[in-house]
Amino acid sequence: MAPILLNCMGNDHNEYIKQQVQVKNPYLDAMEEDILYHLNLGTKTHNLPEMFGDIKFVCVGGSANRMKAFAQFIHQELKLPGNPEEVRDICEGTDRYCMYKVGPVLSISHGMGVPSISIMLHELIKLLHHAQCRDVILFRLGTSGGVGLAPGTVVITDKAVDYSFRAQFEQVVLGKVITRSTELDEGVASELLQCSSELQNVPTVIGNTMCTHDFYEGQGRLDGALCSFSHEEKLEYLRKAHEAGVRNIEMESTVFAAMCRVCGLKAAVICVTLLNRFEGDQITSPHDVLVEYQQRPQALVSHFIKKRLGHIV
Amino acid sequence: MAPILLNCMGNDHNEYIKQQVQVKNPYLDAMEEDILYHLNLGTKTHNLPEMFGDIKFVCVGGSANRMKAFAQFIHQELKLPGNPEEVRDICEGTDRYCMYKVGPVLSISHGMGVPSISIMLHELIKLLHHAQCRDVILFRLGTSGGVGLAPGTVVITDKAVDYSFRAQFEQVVLGKVITRSTELDEGVASELLQCSSELQNVPTVIGNTMCTHDFYEGQGRLDGALCSFSHEEKLEYLRKAHEAGVRNIEMESTVFAAMCRVCGLKAAVICVTLLNRFEGDQITSPHDVLVEYQQRPQALVSHFIKKRLGHIV
Repeated sequence: MAPILLNCMGNDHNEYIKQQVQVKNPYLDAMEEDILYHLNLGTKTHNLPEMFGDIKFVCVGGSANRMKAFAQFIHQELKLPGNPEEVRDICEGTDRYCMYKVGPVLSISHGMGVPSISIMLHELIKLLHHAQCRDVILFRLGTSGGVGLAPGTVVITDKAVDYSFRAQFEQVVLGKVITRSTELDEGVASELLQCSSELQNVPTVIGNTMCTHDFYEGQGRLDGALCSFSHEEKLEYLRKAHEAGVRNIEMESTVFAAMCRVCGLKAAVICVTLLNRFEGDQITSPHDVLVEYQQRPQALVSHFIKKRLGHIV
Repeated sequence: MAPILLNCMGNDHNEYIKQQVQVKNPYLDAMEEDILYHLNLGTKTHNLPEMFGDIKFVCVGGSANRMKAFAQFIHQELKLPGNPEEVRDICEGTDRYCMYKVGPVLSISHGMGVPSISIMLHELIKLLHHAQCRDVILFRLGTSGGVGLAPGTVVITDKAVDYSFRAQFEQVVLGKVITRSTELDEGVASELLQCSSELQNVPTVIGNTMCTHDFYEGQGRLDGALCSFSHEEKLEYLRKAHEAGVRNIEMESTVFAAMCRVCGLKAAVICVTLLNRFEGDQITSPHDVLVEYQQRPQALVSHFIKKRLGHIV
């Protein structure tokens, strides 16, 4: 946005700046067109402010089916007009991600792992910027392995930590490694914990979340195609993680926290645990139990959104 | 497999061992059940030798739609009975990956980035092991950014290299970083190059492929939500990459090469370039041009398979 436009806004200038979604790229606003390739959207082909300008809550998760189900669920919860079954995938021209808009809520899938969510976040943050969105909160709703928790427990992330339990994300920029902080918004986390106490059947804790770059060796699983360590070495690593405050393990939280923080976006990570890693490696619970577990972060975030919108007082 | 069974096989013992797909996990064969969670398959719920025992070629790629299209294409190319339109997703109970079997060819999607393909490869290699497959070749068919090549050029990977142009993959195991070699099979690469010379309209080179962990900052793009470097610094990094033999950039090749190598699987990476990164960052070619480019690795691998099966002499 050109400075001259901001000057017209009088005393609210600083507040306005603070609330807007900030990209950290000096070249972006000078581009004639910005093609958000993996979302199949663009600034010339789509009226992004009209399509997305009213977004206040962005919910992201790995699975396309789960994020469609969440869009349908939030549609019902917010009692919006129209048939929830008919939510339309805004990114239907591509199969990289899917995206649904339900009132002020955007629900997007991001696939598995840091690189996959990172591509989506770059394009999502640009989308929110181009659409001139303000006061947006991002939530990652996911599944995870629990560390010393009963399966089905929801973990609200305090700090997202790496394989050495450091609250940082390593990003390669032009062949050099830089580190970024992965602190999340404490206020949103506390508010989510309060919400969980108002719900039945959503056992919830706040704890650190370890983000790894694979599901097997990096998480100490003994059941991958490759395994070079013993059962005792695995348990020792999990015990160290637990001592460092880690309560669950997933694969996207550090880059999610880091990118949101750099861009001034409030963000929270809410993942349900599908098993207790001290007890095993394979996910053996019946399908219907797993489906119910996966609805818990959705119920929690839906409750938060309804409170923020004044649907629940 | 128990040694006593191997002893029955007489003089072919060593050759047999060499050809079988090798998992590198001493615990696996002692497991009562192995649930391949992200593929929605398992050793108790599925007869894996019956379903997959005849697989000789595994083709993997990021996009689910593209790998379905490849399955339909190879169905026609191999002149198999039945309707190519009716290929069925073997992993239809999950949306993490999709998988199609067409005669001796398996076509699987892997999503974007190293973590996503790594999960699939762990479970795929276990699947091939449980199914007692022999003499399997793996191909990654992908898209990429070109480094000094005309868009549409196909690159057969010589070495898969990291952001510092080293032919290695860093894997975290229980909090420690280990490195694995990313060398690919030279024979298969040469055979693929020979195949390309027998086809029209598939311009092909052999070169190094750089694998990064994101699409924007790690590949020196100026059009992400975050960008902290200049146009000149970007070009300098790409020039260094080119000097190190890098001809394209993608996001999965190092872990693909490393895991296949450890497990004794012959493997090749064949990616088409969608743009020349010296010229820009955004993918601006029309949709139909991009679709045609993406068919080129498919045509090349199909030709290779047909030659190997004796359909072309």
